[in-house]
This record gives sequence, C-alpha cells and structure tokens, in this order.
Amino acid sequence: MKKQRILSGMRPTGDLHLGNYFGALKNWVRLQEDYECFYFIADWHALTTGYEDTSAMKENSRKIVIDWLSAGLDPNKCVMFRQSDIKEHAELHLLFSMFTPVSWLLRCPTYKDQLKQLKEKNIATYGFLGYPCLQAADILMYKANAVPVGEDQIPHLELTREIARRFNFLYGEVFTEPQPLLTEAKVLPGIDGRKMSKSYQNTILLSEQLDEVKKKVGSMITDPERIKKDDPGHPDICSVYAYKKIFNLDEIEEIEASCKAGKIGCVQCKKGLAEKLALYMQPMLERREELLKTPDIVDDILRDGAAKSREVAAATMEEVRNAMKI
Amino acid sequence: MKKQRILSGMRPTGDLHLGNYFGALKNWVRLQEDYECFYFIADWHALTTGYEDTSAMKENSRKIVIDWLSAGLDPNKCVMFRQSDIKEHAELHLLFSMFTPVSWLLRCPTYKDQLKQLKEKNIATYGFLGYPCLQAADILMYKANAVPVGEDQIPHLELTREIARRFNFLYGEVFTEPQPLLTEAKVLPGIDGRKMSKSYQNTILLSEQLDEVKKKVGSMITDPERIKKDDPGHPDICSVYAYKKIFNLDEIEEIEASCKAGKIGCVQCKKGLAEKLALYMQPMLERREELLKTPDIVDDILRDGAAKSREVAAATMEEVRNAMKI
Repeated sequence: MKKQRILSGMRPTGDLHLGNYFGALKNWVRLQEDYECFYFIADWHALTTGYEDTSAMKENSRKIVIDWLSAGLDPNKCVMFRQSDIKEHAELHLLFSMFTPVSWLLRCPTYKDQLKQLKEKNIATYGFLGYPCLQAADILMYKANAVPVGEDQIPHLELTREIARRFNFLYGEVFTEPQPLLTEAKVLPGIDGRKMSKSYQNTILLSEQLDEVKKKVGSMITDPERIKKDDPGHPDICSVYAYKKIFNLDEIEEIEASCKAGKIGCVQCKKGLAEKLALYMQPMLERREELLKTPDIVDDILRDGAAKSREVAAATMEEVRNAMKI
Repeated sequence: MKKQRILSGMRPTGDLHLGNYFGALKNWVRLQEDYECFYFIADWHALTTGYEDTSAMKENSRKIVIDWLSAGLDPNKCVMFRQSDIKEHAELHLLFSMFTPVSWLLRCPTYKDQLKQLKEKNIATYGFLGYPCLQAADILMYKANAVPVGEDQIPHLELTREIARRFNFLYGEVFTEPQPLLTEAKVLPGIDGRKMSKSYQNTILLSEQLDEVKKKVGSMITDPERIKKDDPGHPDICSVYAYKKIFNLDEIEEIEASCKAGKIGCVQCKKGLAEKLALYMQPMLERREELLKTPDIVDDILRDGAAKSREVAAATMEEVRNAMKI
C-alpha cells in the first residue's frame, strides 16, 4: 500500500531549541519512518511577522536544516525543501485568495490573538491576515493526507479543509481534505519555568555545547520556598522536575517522593539531570559536528528537495489550472 | 534617449465594445508609437469578481487579443502578454502582501463601492480585498515609468506608489514610482444612453458586423419628447448626439443647431451616424477578417509576449529577492 503523505513546516527564525524538538521535531523524526513526509522551511511565512528585518533569513534557513539533520531527519527518508524555492505556492495562494471569504480569515482564533501579542510589531498587514490561505496552499499543493498538529492548530487545518471543499465545489474534485494527526507533543519549559522561547532567553539550543548545558541546568529555577536541602520540596512548581518527567520518566515516582520528603537536594537533582541531558544530546551534537565538516550538504539537500517538491507542485498546478480553466 | 515604459492591462471578460475602445484601447494604440508598452490580459484580476464562473476565461483571453490587434495594436510595437503566464506576478504579490497594511486596502474608494454594486456576487473575498496589491505587483514588476489612468483610478496608482516607497524604505531602492499618465478618455454611451456595458446589453462590439451596427444605431434612444420631425430637439439628452460629438466633431455645431430648430429628423441623423460608424469600423473589421484566417497568430503573440515579459520579470525578482535577502 502506498504510504500516506504528510506535510509540515517550520519558520526559520533562529537556532532550534529543545522546546522545538519535543514540541514537533522529535515527532517529525518518528513520522519519516512510516509516512511519505514533506518538511519545509516556511520562509515566506516568517515574513508575516518578520518582514521588518530579514537580514538573517537566508542564514537561518541553512541553520534549520543542520538542526533538522542533527535531530535525526534523514534526506533519504523525507523531503526537505524551502518554501520560497517552489513558486507554485505563491500562485496557488493567489488562486485560493480569490474565493476565500475575508470573514473566514478574520475568525481564525490566532489572528486577533497575535495582533494583540505582537503589538510592538506592525503586523496588521494583508499578508498576515491571509497566512492561513498560504498555509492551505502549502498543504493542499502536496495533497497531504495528514498534517501533524497540536490542539491549538486545529482551526487552521479546518480552514484548509474548507478551502479544499470550496475549490472542489466551484471547479471540480482536485483536492483531498487532509486529516489532523494529533500528536501528544511534550512541553518542555525554559530554564526559568516559563514557555521555552528565544524571546525569553531561557532556551537550551540543540547546538548547545555540553558544558553550557550543564551551566544552564545549574541555573534552573526550582522550588523557591525550599531553602535548605531538608525542606520538603514542591516538584509541581519546579522546572527541573518538569525535565525529569521527560528524561527520567522511569524513576519519576522515586524522585517525586524524595523531593517531597526533603531527601534529595536541588543541586544533586540538577547534576543528575545534566548527566541525562548530556547522554540525550550527545548523539545529536556528534551528528552536527560531522555535518559541519561538509556544510555543502545543506545546499545539496535543499536542491534535491526542491526538485522533488517542484515535481509534485507542478503536477498539482496543472490540475488546478485545468479545473479552473485558466 | 531610452523610451519611457508603460504598463496597462484589461480583464478578459468578453468581446470588447466601442466603449472600451474609446475609453482605453484607442489610447493604447497611440501610446505604442512613443513608449515601450507592456499590455497584459488581466486574467487573474478577472477572478476577483468572476471566480464563480471561469468557463469562458481561456476563450476570452484569446478573443481580447484579436480585438486588440483589430483595433491597431501591433506586436512589433508593443508587448502583449497574459498575466497568468508570468508566475512572478503571484510571487511579487505575495511579498508585497507582507508589508501592505490592511488599512491601505480598506480605504481604496473602489473597494466599498464595488462590494455594494456587486452585491449579488459573493466578492467579499481575500483576493478582492487585495487586488490593488496585485495591481502594484503588475506595474512595479516592469518598473513602468507611467500608467495610463482615468481620474477615478488615481487612488489605485497612489497605492502602488506607496507600496514602492515602503519596499524601498524597508529593503533598499529597487522600484521607481510610476507616474499617472492622465488621458482624456472619451465616454461613448451605450445605445440606450446609459454607460456602455455588457450587462446592460447596450453595446456595439468591435467585432459587430456593419448591418448589425446599422440596426443598433437605428434603435438608439433619442430625445423622447420629440414626436414629430419638426419638434425642436434636445441634443444634450440624445445618445445619437453623443456619438456625433465623437464621429462628426467637425460639423457638430451645425448638427446641434439643426436639431434644436427641428430642421433635421432623428431618422436622417441616425442614417448619417451609421455611415460614419461604418467608415470608422471598416478597417478594424477588415483586419479582424484577415486575422481570423490565421488564428494561430494569437498563440504566437502570447508566446512571444510571455518570453519578453518573463525576461523583465525574472530580472526584477532577482533584485527583489536580493534586497529582501530571501
């Protein structure tokens, strides 16, 4: 049986961190084994919120490929491409725009949210309003059967499905409606306990050297009420504990009990975590070191990826133009 | 000195009529002598208001070229191309969308006007909202120095100029601001005295056979209060007189006086007009007949036009991508 096809993308906004890895990338690595996967660098999407400073865009697009490879994406198992290399996305986006009601876009829950959150950026632009329409073009171009999403992205995918239905209704059956592939992404907080995010400066990068990782773990915020080692701890508000739930899951009950009983101190706890993290990140760092010896590999992968994607995109656009009689 | 460059487009919505000719096309024919002209079939633009029925789009795009040629456009003097053949327009439109505030588009005077006027059509779409942004891409792609416009289109061109300025401010000097080339277009009413328009079924087509022209002129609405030939006429409310102002300008004072004095009857007046119109349209009809003997010429012209346009478009996009560092 033919493998089901999956499409997903990431914006090239800088070095990936462990939050990105556990939130999405780890899942991508797993999916490449069972699905035909198209993973893309969403550089046009990055413009919606980052058009004012594009100076690092090219470099970030290269870096993200290194991050992907070091995390385990394999160019023999999945297609990696850069959105802006496939001009067909812009054409399909334009065609979709013609029959997509503005009201559909205005009612996207993220639209008003982000306008508020990114107040200091000037993002009340036409492109920002329409990015779910560009997203629909990305997904439907490859006739993806499924899209890995978190709960919060379901409304976006529903809009893609609506656009597919509207196209098929107006011009004839061309697109299949992609299904959401709900994945239980693990949320790894930043070292200060908040959401891990570049803008909070609380990240651990995939490219972080191990001594730096150790330092960062050492500075992680634990239970602030625990002054002495013997004080009973509150694991639920401790960011080290949140990490342990991922990296020491097999001994998590023991850790919780010891902490609550004041039997294990934060310093010791952090030391254990740093060792676990080092073990986990070591293979990624080794792969990265290998990759950096032959940096041309990024160009090769993107060229190959573009060729494979363009072939699919060209075939879809042919169908689209025929259906629309344009 | 290098010729100034001009860009203009028409939507392929059906056979062109004399209203289109005197409103724009006649001017295009004149401009090709002194400017480097790029004239395009705005088929993507036609989708903004016509996405629900695209069945005639391809055929209309071919027909409009025949209309253009019969009216005197010369493929050796100007470039004719179809917008959808130059995918770069979609890419530039997408890039412009990223920094074009929605408020600029909402304040376009035609936007709310058309939403009201075309109520029966479902055009409150994302693409309809953004069509001035696509228009900016069309114009700036060719770095046109000037755009022939009527008074009513000045706000649109101003938006194109704003987009050019904003791009240059954000990413560096790439675009020149096109100037409006105000042309006194003559308004030729339909045979019922209203605006000539396909939807009013009051047109005289460029492809109309002369006996049909004669019939249509015969059915034109004159002064309804003039029952008998000797009644004094009111030329100002007579559609035949409106035509005479264009086709018999040299004897217009005499005609006006005779009508007001009741010295010339409507039938005689119409007969004179039909003869004048026939004289005027004869060369266009002959050219059309010639063209229809070798219909492949349309494909040749569009292929040539696409090649020439694509060359300019590719060079502009190269500059744009470099400036935006994407």
